[in-house]
Amino acid sequence: MKEKEKNAKDDGFVEEVTLGEIHPLQLSSGGTLSPFKIAYKSWGKLNSDKSNAILVCHALTGDQYARGKNPLTGKDGWWPKMIGPGLPIDTNKYFVICTNVLGSCSGTSGPKEINTKTNEPYGLDFPVITIADMVSAQVMLVNYLKIDQLFSVIGGSMGGMQVLQWAVNHSARVRTAIPIASTWRHSAQNIAFHEVGRQAIMADPNWSKGRYFENDNGPHAGLSVARMAAHITYMSERSLTAKFGRNLQDREKLTFGFDADFQVESYLRYQGISFVDRFDANSYLYITRAMDYFDISADYGGNLSKAFENTPVKFCIMSFTSDWLYTTQESREIVRALNAVGAQVSSVEIDMEKGHDSFLLDCPEMFNIIAGFLAAEAGK
Amino acid sequence: MKEKEKNAKDDGFVEEVTLGEIHPLQLSSGGTLSPFKIAYKSWGKLNSDKSNAILVCHALTGDQYARGKNPLTGKDGWWPKMIGPGLPIDTNKYFVICTNVLGSCSGTSGPKEINTKTNEPYGLDFPVITIADMVSAQVMLVNYLKIDQLFSVIGGSMGGMQVLQWAVNHSARVRTAIPIASTWRHSAQNIAFHEVGRQAIMADPNWSKGRYFENDNGPHAGLSVARMAAHITYMSERSLTAKFGRNLQDREKLTFGFDADFQVESYLRYQGISFVDRFDANSYLYITRAMDYFDISADYGGNLSKAFENTPVKFCIMSFTSDWLYTTQESREIVRALNAVGAQVSSVEIDMEKGHDSFLLDCPEMFNIIAGFLAAEAGK
Repeated sequence: MKEKEKNAKDDGFVEEVTLGEIHPLQLSSGGTLSPFKIAYKSWGKLNSDKSNAILVCHALTGDQYARGKNPLTGKDGWWPKMIGPGLPIDTNKYFVICTNVLGSCSGTSGPKEINTKTNEPYGLDFPVITIADMVSAQVMLVNYLKIDQLFSVIGGSMGGMQVLQWAVNHSARVRTAIPIASTWRHSAQNIAFHEVGRQAIMADPNWSKGRYFENDNGPHAGLSVARMAAHITYMSERSLTAKFGRNLQDREKLTFGFDADFQVESYLRYQGISFVDRFDANSYLYITRAMDYFDISADYGGNLSKAFENTPVKFCIMSFTSDWLYTTQESREIVRALNAVGAQVSSVEIDMEKGHDSFLLDCPEMFNIIAGFLAAEAGK
Repeated sequence: MKEKEKNAKDDGFVEEVTLGEIHPLQLSSGGTLSPFKIAYKSWGKLNSDKSNAILVCHALTGDQYARGKNPLTGKDGWWPKMIGPGLPIDTNKYFVICTNVLGSCSGTSGPKEINTKTNEPYGLDFPVITIADMVSAQVMLVNYLKIDQLFSVIGGSMGGMQVLQWAVNHSARVRTAIPIASTWRHSAQNIAFHEVGRQAIMADPNWSKGRYFENDNGPHAGLSVARMAAHITYMSERSLTAKFGRNLQDREKLTFGFDADFQVESYLRYQGISFVDRFDANSYLYITRAMDYFDISADYGGNLSKAFENTPVKFCIMSFTSDWLYTTQESREIVRALNAVGAQVSSVEIDMEKGHDSFLLDCPEMFNIIAGFLAAEAGK
């Protein structure tokens, strides 16, 4: 199953595994998926008692390339200062796994991949999945790797939702859980922003009801608009002002037209256009849907504390002052629920002005907290 | 020029005037507009010394139908509890004017109207205009009505920008100015949200570079997405949660599809679709552009206080606690700038949880403040 990465510049592998052939993946919708692929990367070495595995969970548009060069974009992975030798998630100590989530488009089964039953891409025939389904697929990978318990599950944003889902649905298999800049349920405003993105994609005639693979021309304009709208929510008003303000783009004065006069317009357009090259529009629909469906209290009558009752998991919960997408308030609600059932939890609100995306940025305080939290637990 | 409204249910008129035939409207871009139409409504009676006129300025998607039935939508005007006999802007005392702004689509010259030089709609041949240009057009209407000084200029959101522009550019002609839930310059985040809307419209193939009037099929999907994105910014996270939360729309459980499972999705889709019936896509481009260009300090080297130096105008500035589009912080900056030059200013932050749109809603505190401020000045 394993194959050395060609031209690998880091210590990772290209890894892919086909699962669910005998025991299908049971989905929240009631359906099943069989077989399905999981594409993942790993770094470091699994120790002999398999007690040093850390699962890193990615956000909406992330992938398994948390570290090292992403072969699709040619750019560095999305958590370069977090994972590596001597870094907070120290690959000299830990065996680190990052899977491309179910429904995504970087090798794991999703709408872009071939449905072996029809020999064409799934498109909208791919089942609508949930965060719990993403986690169920990860559990099957962890089983395949013969790891009983993960030393830690860690992730930001949607990654944090997976962390919480692991802690709630598979508490015996998680020693520590680190959700960052995340939430326990998608709010009306969160859903609203996602719905705008989906409508932008589906309004694009090139979406063709999800069968754009037939005509080689996807909903680029729609996906680009979706990304632009979402990108605003990832930054704070202050960071946009600090970065761009009302600065003009390569011009001395206003042009009295609809070109990108302002730097912030030019920047947003670039965010939209470059996103189209690396992300599948249908995957965007599926993953935003999974996030909107996320409410970890739903199976517990809306009682968040009940979801965590008797949990053996140790939590470290982080949020950022300027994150208005998943606010500190939402992290506090998780902390309160954990406290109510006597769970072990530490929590920090980090003063950082760059908004939701802070978890992806150079944030020494976050790095220190994670390094310290993991080291303390490893020392026990 | 004046004609009694057919089926009029209120005390208003259908009023329209063609201006600029001899003296063209001088635009900020350096161009001119000649001739141009202003559609407006008025209520109450102008007194003999013409000292009781109040100009009401509308927001981005507003129109002249601030009061009474809007003949296009069949619905009530947008400020029904603000303007009328015995209401805060008391039509028993004041002569109240509301103009459809330049560039809009409810009778005033804009991209939808016929360019008399070509006998077809302007489309993108309409000049790109600014808030200052909207106000210059209003000045010409006020001249036409032979009113030397307005007793008050009042408006929320983009209406507030016009109020500030009146106070700065035409301070001798304004006795009091009441900008509500507004700002002195469009921020990077404000521009970013507008740019998403414009890109959504221009990405729609039916936009046809603004010449959709030729094929009778406008960019409905794109305009709808633009409205959806904007609408989220008009409400607070709390009000969306209070109104919709994660409630499902006419169903008992999640459908695992891309229909509007959630009420907030259904609501947003409705906001988008119904907007298309009443608003012109090109006008949306022009007016958002005018707002993005708005920075009342720009002509004063970025020094906001300088813009108000020696102003005789008396200001009453209001903001709402939950407004994250034009925050109280921005109103405070205006107040500080006015204080720095010794201007007469009172300001209030109103505790209201409904977000930016609070100024359009039933807000007794706002009504009381405006009634009191106007009465105090009228008593002098």
